[in-house]
This record gives sequence, structure tokens and C-alpha cells, in this order.
Amino acid sequence: MLNFNYYSPTEFVFGRGAEERAGEMIRKRGGTKVLVHFGGGSAIRSGLMDRVTASLDAAGLPYITLGGVQPNPRSSLVYRGIELARAEGVDFILAVGGGSVIDSSKAIALGVPYDGDFWDFFCGKAKPERALGVGVVLTLAAAGSEGSKSCVITQEDGGFKRGCGNELNRPKFALMNPEVTYTLPAYQTACGATDMMAHVLERYFTNEKGVDLTDRLCEAVLSAVIKAAPVAIAEPDNYEARAQLMWASTLAHNDSCGLGREGDWASHQIEHELSARYDVAHGAGLAVVFPAWMRYQLDHDPMRFAQLAVRVWGCDMDFEHPEKTGLEGIERYEQFLKSIGMPTRLGELHVDPADIPAMAGKCKRNNAGKLGFFRPLDTGDIAKILYSAM
Amino acid sequence: MLNFNYYSPTEFVFGRGAEERAGEMIRKRGGTKVLVHFGGGSAIRSGLMDRVTASLDAAGLPYITLGGVQPNPRSSLVYRGIELARAEGVDFILAVGGGSVIDSSKAIALGVPYDGDFWDFFCGKAKPERALGVGVVLTLAAAGSEGSKSCVITQEDGGFKRGCGNELNRPKFALMNPEVTYTLPAYQTACGATDMMAHVLERYFTNEKGVDLTDRLCEAVLSAVIKAAPVAIAEPDNYEARAQLMWASTLAHNDSCGLGREGDWASHQIEHELSARYDVAHGAGLAVVFPAWMRYQLDHDPMRFAQLAVRVWGCDMDFEHPEKTGLEGIERYEQFLKSIGMPTRLGELHVDPADIPAMAGKCKRNNAGKLGFFRPLDTGDIAKILYSAM
Repeated sequence: MLNFNYYSPTEFVFGRGAEERAGEMIRKRGGTKVLVHFGGGSAIRSGLMDRVTASLDAAGLPYITLGGVQPNPRSSLVYRGIELARAEGVDFILAVGGGSVIDSSKAIALGVPYDGDFWDFFCGKAKPERALGVGVVLTLAAAGSEGSKSCVITQEDGGFKRGCGNELNRPKFALMNPEVTYTLPAYQTACGATDMMAHVLERYFTNEKGVDLTDRLCEAVLSAVIKAAPVAIAEPDNYEARAQLMWASTLAHNDSCGLGREGDWASHQIEHELSARYDVAHGAGLAVVFPAWMRYQLDHDPMRFAQLAVRVWGCDMDFEHPEKTGLEGIERYEQFLKSIGMPTRLGELHVDPADIPAMAGKCKRNNAGKLGFFRPLDTGDIAKILYSAM
Repeated sequence: MLNFNYYSPTEFVFGRGAEERAGEMIRKRGGTKVLVHFGGGSAIRSGLMDRVTASLDAAGLPYITLGGVQPNPRSSLVYRGIELARAEGVDFILAVGGGSVIDSSKAIALGVPYDGDFWDFFCGKAKPERALGVGVVLTLAAAGSEGSKSCVITQEDGGFKRGCGNELNRPKFALMNPEVTYTLPAYQTACGATDMMAHVLERYFTNEKGVDLTDRLCEAVLSAVIKAAPVAIAEPDNYEARAQLMWASTLAHNDSCGLGREGDWASHQIEHELSARYDVAHGAGLAVVFPAWMRYQLDHDPMRFAQLAVRVWGCDMDFEHPEKTGLEGIERYEQFLKSIGMPTRLGELHVDPADIPAMAGKCKRNNAGKLGFFRPLDTGDIAKILYSAM
């Protein structure tokens, strides 16, 4: 088990009516002028935005709004948000949305007090030292950005999708009412479930030994998602299923499942190339990439794959051939993804095989020039994984 | 699933050498004069106290020390600590120890800025509004006080053992080096494991439905403790086993396993009467009380007991007679406790059966005048449970 530092000072307010506490929570943290950042019109149409702004009004908090965040949030809107926030003297950002809105808000929060280009933090040119406070009204159980230190933005100039992981990125609070996710279409619900499962799996595939407790926490979150996702898809207003998914999205990515171990993260980086080029939903991209990555890596540590298969997918252990059990687990995972309506082949995402070498070459590497940590990959490996998913 | 609010702003520094960061961590939080609070001489003999005070010296932090905390920490030392801290202008308390030292430190931290008697917070006469900061160098994996909002003190005048749960009690940081627990005797290691299992089980036995995710988190922590405890007892310097136990102690009681549900807590209250009267180790008392409580409550919800038996104890599900599976789980739990050297009968704790009615009558009740929430108990029930454990 590796040494770790764990600091998660986000205040989570979970349950019915949580969104009505936005004003009070910002006041408590000294915010005086708020930028309410959101995506499309669904937050307005559903009445959510009215409830949120009413709570700001009740707290006597002036605010401005900036909508238009798209999935795979773009740098252009971040630049606009930074300018707007500076011009209006904003000192607190309230994200009303899912991972894209939250990440866009985090990037604005990093950019406002910084003299240079906020992208410096995403291409490794600089490390953030300050940030405005960010609060969240969560509308989508998926990315876990409401409790995480990560932030992923797509630079349109060049199509680079890059992340900036920093403790400054952890939101001050997250207001999580499962009811606001009732209106999510089945496809988005499934993408969210796939994303959170991937966040856990990236951490699960480690070479670190002596991590039994976090292994079991990972398995607990995966099992709960596998049970709740089909229910939430079949009965969109099932409170309990929506609640399990919403809290699972936070636990999957607030790092509680990854403490003391080095995760892999290759599948995320490969998917970032897919979604930067084809603008597919992150969850859908992961549904294609992750099982392919697993098949490619099975022989690196068959017992770890078998453990997952037995404990999470309920497979019988084949003690003579653990790799067969491991493979059965991968197959069950893929069947599960199909059953909730996810694509599992690149063809379904309309990916042109001719693009594979370029995508494989572009994936962001670690310091050793390789991709991932479980069994690090080179460009040839990445291309093989992508071809295997065609 | 109930609404919940979860805020755990403790910074956890976990791993080898963590204790050497005490000075830096207090500085970061603005502390200028420290009371180092500890128990017996083991922290001094092992060299731990030297490493901790060296780190305070290196950070230029003046400090005073106050040792002598006993298991089931006493109000008399809390009063002394409050006086001392006031006289010396202390603004930060550093607890070097386990749950008793941490709770004593928390009580001092509550008492220093309060005009009245700190016991007001423990007998329900007042609610704390301020507290000094508390940091922890953990030496014992058990009570989980390093991450919890709880604090339990024994008032010697009357033998009352009472708790004060408040968000102000959460430590600012916890430095957790599994190596410092290598010297713990097997009995204390086992008491610690029993205590953390009890913290999870108190939350597990709930009437709340739709809590699949937190059920599974509970099961994950229990399973990890069941695996690690015998290893740590057989090989006291097994880093990985000590590390699982240390982190499990935090997760068992920082409330992550209890979100969205109402726990029971009757067994803890019954045990408090035992340890207030006989001064037995908290874990040993729980090892006797909890299985007896479970047998008494089995028929209230046999399926919940069966779920625990199957998922945690690996029992075969008896689909015709789930209560038999539930009972088998209780028996396995008891066997496990015996196997790690815990008592499971009141006789082993030298309890006089003539004391049972008085202890049963003295247990702290909830607002409805009953004890616990799973199936609330009256005095007669509590006495029956205690007699069944003789």
C-alpha cells in the first residue's frame, strides 16, 4: 500500500430539496457575487434554475448567469466566463449541471485570479495557486466532478482534451437531489453509470499489493451501480435507484476508492482522443474502450481480473484456469453495458479506422513516455486495442 | 434513503513517517501554542513522542504536554487540560494516541472557549459553538475518533459515560503511520478490530430501505477487517495488515458507512454502562454485548441478518429458512471474536449478574424513552440481553 494524503473538504448536502440551500451555502463561505454557470435549457425548463436563483435572492446574493456549456466542455466558453467574472467582480461560481458544467466552472475559477492563460494549467506549463470557490447543484450522476479534484477541458484549437488535477479544484459544496435526475433520458443515465464504473475500474487495475480494503470499496461501488442503473433506466423516477447512482458517482471519483494505490487511467486517455475527435459522449466512448483494454491486459494479472469477475459479476472461480474466469468477467461487463444501451464497438460511434494511428499517437503519456500504469502501453499497443474494438 | 449532510474536512496523511509532519500541519492551520495530549509512557518509550516534538520544534511551535489519559477517558483530566490550556494560552491540541486520547483532546478543545462546565455538552444542557483545533497522531486503530464527530467521556462523579456528537469535533488532520501500531499487544489489536466492526454493525442494522450502496460499503469494511485482524495479531509488524486496520478504523466511524440511514447504537450504549462500571476495554465489552443483541433482534428482520451472513461471513443462503442463515452469521461472528482472543460472555468480564437491572435501567434513551432504533428496547429487553450474555 502506498502512502497517501486524503483531503475532501467538500460539504455534501444530499436529498430532496437540497438545491434550495444554494444561497445559504454560498453566504456561509463568504461569497458576495455569483456566476451561475449552466448548460442547455433543461435546467431552466425543469424549473430547477428558478429554485436555485430564488435561493440566491433569498440570501441577498447578486448573481449573473452564463449558460451554454456543452458536453466535453470547451475552452472558448471558459475564456468567456473568466472575462465575464472579472468584469462583474464575481467571487463565487455556482455550477448547475453535471461534469461538463462543473469542469467548466472549475476552469473559470482557476482562470479568474491567474495572470496568464488558464490553459497553462492544462498543458503543464504552470501550477494553479489560487482559485475562486465553486459550489455545485448536481443534475447528472456521472463524472463525480462534484467531489473530485479533477477538471477536464477541450481546447478547440487543436482538439486537445486535457485534465488538470489539483486540490484547489474540489468544490466547496455539492447539493445533490436525486429527483432532479428523473428527467434524464435513458441514454444519458447509462452513460453516467458507465462513466462511474470506469472511474472505479481505472483505480481497481493496479499493481500495488496490500490494498484489500480499497479493492472491496471499489467492488461495493461497482455492485451498487450494476444493481441501480437498470432500475433507474426502467423507472426514471425511482428515487432509491437515482440516489444510489448519485452518491456512487461521487464515491467513484472523490478518490476514496483509489487511496494507497496507483491507478491505470489509460482507458480514459484513449477515450479522450475519441471524444475530442468525434465528440461522442464520454461514457459511450468508455463503454467501447474499457472492455477492449481489459481483454488486452488480461494476461498481465489474470488473478486480479478473476477477483473482479467473482466478487462483482458473481462468476464461478475456475481454479485451474483463472484467466477463463477473468475473461468471463469481461464478457459479463460488456453484456451489462449492452443491456443498458451502451455501444461496445467503435463502429457504433462511427469511428473511421483510418484515424486510429493518429489517435493512438496523440494520447497523453506519463513521464516514462508510456500510457497507463497497470501494464504501460506504447503507440502500437493503443492502436491494437482500438483496432480490436472496431 | 434518508436525506443527509456529509462534511468530513479532516486531512488524512497516511503512511510511513506521517507523524513527522505534525509541526507543518499545525502551522498551516494557524496554531501558535500547542498542548500535546497523550496517554501512558508507551508513546515516549517507543520514541514516537520524540519524533512528534522534534517536528513541532522544527516548525518553531512552542508546546506543553499533558499525559495520563486512561482508557474510558475521565472528566477530571479534561478539567485539568482545560485549565492548563487556558493558563498557557494554548490554541491547538495535538492528540498523540488512540480514541481515548483523541476524545479527551476533543473535550478539552470544546471546554477551553466555553464559559460553563464542559460537561454541559455531554449531558445535553448546552450545544457547543466553538472549539480549539485538534490534530491527531494516531497510535491505535480502533475508535475512529481521528475522523469522527463523536467524543465520549466518563464523568467519574456518578460513573456516567456520555457522548457529544458535533461537527466541531472533527479533527483538522490525522497523521496515520501503521508502523506505530506494531508494538500493540494482540489483545488491544483485537479490541480495536472489534470496536471498528461494531461501528459498522451499528449502522448496518437499520430499518431504512434503499441503502444498497452504504450496505455494500459496510460489508466491504467488515470483510477487510475480518481478513486483516488475524494477520496483524499473528504478525504484529505486517505493514499491510496494520494499514488495512488503520484505514478501516477511520472509515468505520467517519460516517461514510452510515449516510442516508438511521443506525441502531443500542449495543454501544449498553457497553458504555459495562465499561463505566467495570472499566473493561470498550472492544471487549462490545464483543460480549453485540452478538447477544443480534440474537435478540434476529426475528425483527431475518433477511438483513441473512444478507450479512451471506455477504460477509460467506454463509450459504437457506432460502427456506433465512433466519437460520442469519443465526449462522451471528455464530460465525462470535467464533471470529473468540479466535482473535475476545471474550464473548459477561462472566469473562467478571460482571456480577446482580448489577444487570441497575445497568439496564441506566442506559441512555432516545427521545421516545427507548434504547436504539432498529427495534427499540426498554429496560426489560436490555436486561434480557445482558442475562443472555452471562
